[in-house]
Amino acid sequence: MNQPPLPLLPARPLSPQLLYRQLAEHYLAAIQAGALTPGERMPSVRELMRQHQVSLSTALQALRYLEQGGWLEARPRSGYFVLPQRRLALLEEVDLAAVPALMSAQYAGIHERVSEVIARGRASTVTLDLSSASCAPELYAVEALKNAAIRTLRQRPQVLTSMMSHSANPAFRQILAKRSLAIGIQLAPEEVIVTHGCIEAINLALRAVAQPGDTIAVESPTYYGLLQVLESLGMRALEIPTSARTGISVEALQLALQTYGNIKAVVVVPNLQNPLGSIMPDTHKEQLVALCEQHGMAVIEDDSYSELVPEASSARALKAWDRSGNVIYCASLNKVLAPGMRLGWMAGGRWQARIEMLKFAHTRANEEWAQMAAADFMASPAYERHLRRLREALRVQRARTAEAIATHFPAGTRINTPDGGALLWVELPRQLASKAVFEAALREGIKIAPGLMFSNSNRFDHYLRLCCGQPFTPRIEQGIKRLGAIVEEQLAQQLTA
Amino acid sequence: MNQPPLPLLPARPLSPQLLYRQLAEHYLAAIQAGALTPGERMPSVRELMRQHQVSLSTALQALRYLEQGGWLEARPRSGYFVLPQRRLALLEEVDLAAVPALMSAQYAGIHERVSEVIARGRASTVTLDLSSASCAPELYAVEALKNAAIRTLRQRPQVLTSMMSHSANPAFRQILAKRSLAIGIQLAPEEVIVTHGCIEAINLALRAVAQPGDTIAVESPTYYGLLQVLESLGMRALEIPTSARTGISVEALQLALQTYGNIKAVVVVPNLQNPLGSIMPDTHKEQLVALCEQHGMAVIEDDSYSELVPEASSARALKAWDRSGNVIYCASLNKVLAPGMRLGWMAGGRWQARIEMLKFAHTRANEEWAQMAAADFMASPAYERHLRRLREALRVQRARTAEAIATHFPAGTRINTPDGGALLWVELPRQLASKAVFEAALREGIKIAPGLMFSNSNRFDHYLRLCCGQPFTPRIEQGIKRLGAIVEEQLAQQLTA
Repeated sequence: MNQPPLPLLPARPLSPQLLYRQLAEHYLAAIQAGALTPGERMPSVRELMRQHQVSLSTALQALRYLEQGGWLEARPRSGYFVLPQRRLALLEEVDLAAVPALMSAQYAGIHERVSEVIARGRASTVTLDLSSASCAPELYAVEALKNAAIRTLRQRPQVLTSMMSHSANPAFRQILAKRSLAIGIQLAPEEVIVTHGCIEAINLALRAVAQPGDTIAVESPTYYGLLQVLESLGMRALEIPTSARTGISVEALQLALQTYGNIKAVVVVPNLQNPLGSIMPDTHKEQLVALCEQHGMAVIEDDSYSELVPEASSARALKAWDRSGNVIYCASLNKVLAPGMRLGWMAGGRWQARIEMLKFAHTRANEEWAQMAAADFMASPAYERHLRRLREALRVQRARTAEAIATHFPAGTRINTPDGGALLWVELPRQLASKAVFEAALREGIKIAPGLMFSNSNRFDHYLRLCCGQPFTPRIEQGIKRLGAIVEEQLAQQLTA
Repeated sequence: MNQPPLPLLPARPLSPQLLYRQLAEHYLAAIQAGALTPGERMPSVRELMRQHQVSLSTALQALRYLEQGGWLEARPRSGYFVLPQRRLALLEEVDLAAVPALMSAQYAGIHERVSEVIARGRASTVTLDLSSASCAPELYAVEALKNAAIRTLRQRPQVLTSMMSHSANPAFRQILAKRSLAIGIQLAPEEVIVTHGCIEAINLALRAVAQPGDTIAVESPTYYGLLQVLESLGMRALEIPTSARTGISVEALQLALQTYGNIKAVVVVPNLQNPLGSIMPDTHKEQLVALCEQHGMAVIEDDSYSELVPEASSARALKAWDRSGNVIYCASLNKVLAPGMRLGWMAGGRWQARIEMLKFAHTRANEEWAQMAAADFMASPAYERHLRRLREALRVQRARTAEAIATHFPAGTRINTPDGGALLWVELPRQLASKAVFEAALREGIKIAPGLMFSNSNRFDHYLRLCCGQPFTPRIEQGIKRLGAIVEEQLAQQLTA
């Protein structure tokens, strides 16, 4: 019970307008340092207003923010009180001393390891799925999307029976180009290549810049789908240490370049990395783009989550610093607009023509109907409202899930604290094998993603990725409680084994 | 004017129930042999009934069939009269003596040749497009498809916002498995892999059986999209002579195997080959499957057109003769159900697991919405009605277009006589370069597909592929007339040059 607490707030500087978060962070630090102890009464709203010269609204927001994060509880007519500290530790920064040991460019059989997990998951009866990276269907604007789709079909039914044009729908390209201004990218609509999800974009980018046998640098841990793609293309993955707070280590990548020389590309998720949830600081983004340009190594940016970053944080794309076309930008609307529509897109930088050729040769242009329906909805103010609701829902779900893990998992468990998204990355105590936890949980109908899926090495075998994309219900709390008990049981078995 | 005539009827034996076609063929042979000459009166309906012991309906159908093919004209109250013979010759059988010269496994820059044609086509103002392989949107069941799509969205709107399952929609797979019984294929629905058009299926099949640098046998001429795919995958195309009547030459393939040894696969369109429109006789299909199995060479079957083959002809798949899983079956609904829905599918034979892995790694499962809408429509009797209407519309359009070419193109022009589909393959007189015709036509807003797109060699540079997928209107007749004049002009220039 004496672990350091789980901070909900990011270490990165906040934008000045978010006074309430500065205020909340101030008090959180006090709780973490023990200056405020469990059971103690917080200053009242009026006291906060007076002491910190803030408005009523700011003081209230700060208290509610700490309450929603599980740090305070509100007692009727008495005010806010500090809750007991959690049992979880924050995942530490990447240990650069350990870097060289991780640096073998491995070509392990990731597919078989992942396939086995997937096959077991499919063969079992799953009552609670915490393994995916997707959010619940009801978190999306189902009605508005359905109406946009029906409107499209009514207005232009021949979109179903007309031969595809060579390239994507103009209105959809226009909206994507316009929206990317917010993350620092300037694109002509004609440069937007619409793809079948981000996964096709990544495939095309890799095929454009590299050949079978070539080495590609990836984050470690990384999304298992990327390791499968590399294996299916016959390319080798070089894993670069990646921090749960600041993303890929630019120093480690530089060291890898000095050590291994010819690395054709690096694939990076700069905003809300999967599975870590990290957001690279702007300085790191700038350094990474400069380093890669200097060494003639392509940057393949997977930016599928930046719309889930809170508005207060910077979610600028790596592409924003690209001056020479060395960054291939890839993104997806699966997580933000609609998981079932499989809309991805990309801008190919100096490989644009080659990527357009590969896309045409592989799958032709995407079906236009879905692009038109998406453009219809995304052009309306309802899309921004939906994104705000989605971000807020995920914030609450992350906080509730982290809280449940803190309550029900054994001491020694560590966790990340992402600023957005739907993923929590959990380190099990005493190097407990996540595969054993995966299998024991699956026997009870609970599905999780074991850490072994996220690396070609066995470095993350004692981690879990848990999805908090579903509204937090007693059923989910119950599942996490049971998961905590399973971890305890496996730890006990480990001791007696 | 003394060229041999253009037969409308196939050389393959007709199924016995189609008496009227046997009868028509009988008289067509007489016309071709000169036994019946232009201007001569045909036997009357009553005479035909008596002489051939057929019903009124059969006699009438035979006369109308010859009339629709442009062989007879009906004069009111006088009966049917033989029309003047055409100026077109039928494309001959493949000349096997010429085979060895064609056999260099070439890796020419097809993409640049095709890209240039495509780029010029895009940059120009096109008022009449005869270059595509697609049919007009109004030939499809637009209203029924729109209604099926809207019904799907109303019943299951969350299909838009739900994460995709690992594989295709069960109802859609079921219908595809059931329909393939008719072409001799037995499949479990679980074996159906749904893809983004047939082009993705071909890509996956090639990647499953071969590596970059490997040699793949293809028909010659072949669909330019296949040559682009091979180039994009770094594979080499070995062109096998292919007949406008019986498809790929099995003897030539055998010779190629003896000469070149290691050919990893052959890609074949057995039914309504693109661009030739040939249908392989069943005996050839059987021989091809046996030959490839014997030599351990995979067969990749592209069967996107078999639903357009008239019901009287055999459109059995190569896969129907497959006993060892050596045939990978690929198909598309683009040409038969809806060009804008981009639905393809495949069954991977002994490479099933590898293809499933490649599909997942490259584009994940297809959007479910389109599959559900397609399954809804295809399960209704309206789908068969639509197919019958489409086949009949194409039959009329092919006959009218061939008639217009016969009328307006110079003597020495030769043409194929496909039993189905929307493509005509035209050989220009005196080796006239189709590129010059393409460019001259494009200057007047008429777009055609020049023969150079259909081979890595220059063997088809004096051919054109013309699409007759649009209802035949005076505008189209006018365009073909103008095209004939352009060919005349280019021939004249060739003489003076």
